[in-house]
Amino acid sequence: MAGGSREPGRSVTSRVLAILRSFDGDHLGLTLTEISRRSGVALTTAHRLVGELEASQALTRAQDGRYRIGLRLWEIGHLAAGRLPEIAHPWLQEVYATTGENVHLAVRDGLDVLYVDKVHGRRAVPIVSRTGTRLPMHPTGVGKALLAHEADWFITSYLERRLERPTPHTITEPGRLARELASVRSQGYAFTYEEMTLGSCSAAAPIIVDGRPIAALGIVLASRRARELPHMVDPLRASAAQIARAYGKDSPSVT
Amino acid sequence: MAGGSREPGRSVTSRVLAILRSFDGDHLGLTLTEISRRSGVALTTAHRLVGELEASQALTRAQDGRYRIGLRLWEIGHLAAGRLPEIAHPWLQEVYATTGENVHLAVRDGLDVLYVDKVHGRRAVPIVSRTGTRLPMHPTGVGKALLAHEADWFITSYLERRLERPTPHTITEPGRLARELASVRSQGYAFTYEEMTLGSCSAAAPIIVDGRPIAALGIVLASRRARELPHMVDPLRASAAQIARAYGKDSPSVT
Repeated sequence: MAGGSREPGRSVTSRVLAILRSFDGDHLGLTLTEISRRSGVALTTAHRLVGELEASQALTRAQDGRYRIGLRLWEIGHLAAGRLPEIAHPWLQEVYATTGENVHLAVRDGLDVLYVDKVHGRRAVPIVSRTGTRLPMHPTGVGKALLAHEADWFITSYLERRLERPTPHTITEPGRLARELASVRSQGYAFTYEEMTLGSCSAAAPIIVDGRPIAALGIVLASRRARELPHMVDPLRASAAQIARAYGKDSPSVT
Repeated sequence: MAGGSREPGRSVTSRVLAILRSFDGDHLGLTLTEISRRSGVALTTAHRLVGELEASQALTRAQDGRYRIGLRLWEIGHLAAGRLPEIAHPWLQEVYATTGENVHLAVRDGLDVLYVDKVHGRRAVPIVSRTGTRLPMHPTGVGKALLAHEADWFITSYLERRLERPTPHTITEPGRLARELASVRSQGYAFTYEEMTLGSCSAAAPIIVDGRPIAALGIVLASRRARELPHMVDPLRASAAQIARAYGKDSPSVT
């Protein structure tokens, strides 16, 4: 359609994005054939577009002949999170120093949470939240903390969908989840117990600026340590409040 | 040319990338007119492509009507750094814990260094190296550490260019810089003194995997503390060696 494409109904831009999205954490390096198959872009078109993306440094070709996402895109993509990670980082450090636990920062993207920063040491812990991970909101601590503070219409429409159920403990019954979110909202923090991953539990607090949840801070522990979760709430909430204050000062009108 | 463009000589892909690159750390939100002006893409074409990028979630439109880079691109771009930041992070923490100084991780991209991770606390320090920053190699500690360990042909061709001189202390005379790099290479670490920013000095160590410098660890201090730089070398080198070992194990054949 647009862009003079020979494949009707799909713009060049959407095909370029489909090519870029054929890469993920489990597919960091792809051949041209794999890119074509995973993106659904015909091989000849993929060949041309990949060449153009390589010329623009959006893709690079490694010594093994496979394509990878180029650092140019890292640099551009980094702008999406704005000043938040830079502002929040010292407060993630603070939670890490106080609790000794790995701390992560997540934002909402559509109906998912995206983990955009993480402070972690060498201690072995359950890794659910590698930076760059995208997860549904209702089974994760950071997701519940964010969802609970969204507008009512957003929560209602979230609950109307068929909800993923990664474990038998995931709360998917709309009435029960709505009550859970109401309680998260009034408490100002969220817990999960094996709702995303068997063997892991979590605590999280939202970062609220001008009444809107812009991000959440979370900690994940092994389930056998679930009784320690309540001790994580105060450090998480204190740092979340400091981040909100610092962010509000830095970006008074930016959402 | 390619992509059925009405502006000959420039592919749709390169115009899409030009639009994305019109955003930077000082221009996080742009109007359509600003995008057109900064990218050099005609307004009507920019209008169409920006619409397609918004539909693909590569751009989002904020409440103020300005476009911003979308989290979808953050997610894709994040893949460019591969496993390195996740593997390196605990060792940045280690340097931070040992020295109390802000630590950053940088990689080479073309003839620049790109800062891809940073561990920082609340202490006020000279901020040169915000994550996402791109700087030339020869005036920065991490840049010198990386450049010194590149192949001879690379160093020679780097030195043949006209070199930026951000301060009067920047070493740009090719002979002197070549000697400096030889000494960095034999010592295994680099210092700078006000070569990038007046008032700041730095120390850095390269992370060498299979004989190639894949990244560097660096610390920046106020110049009045320059005498402390030698104490930073051991922690930096120790952590750089540990990262190299962990990275080599994780990605035996990936460069």
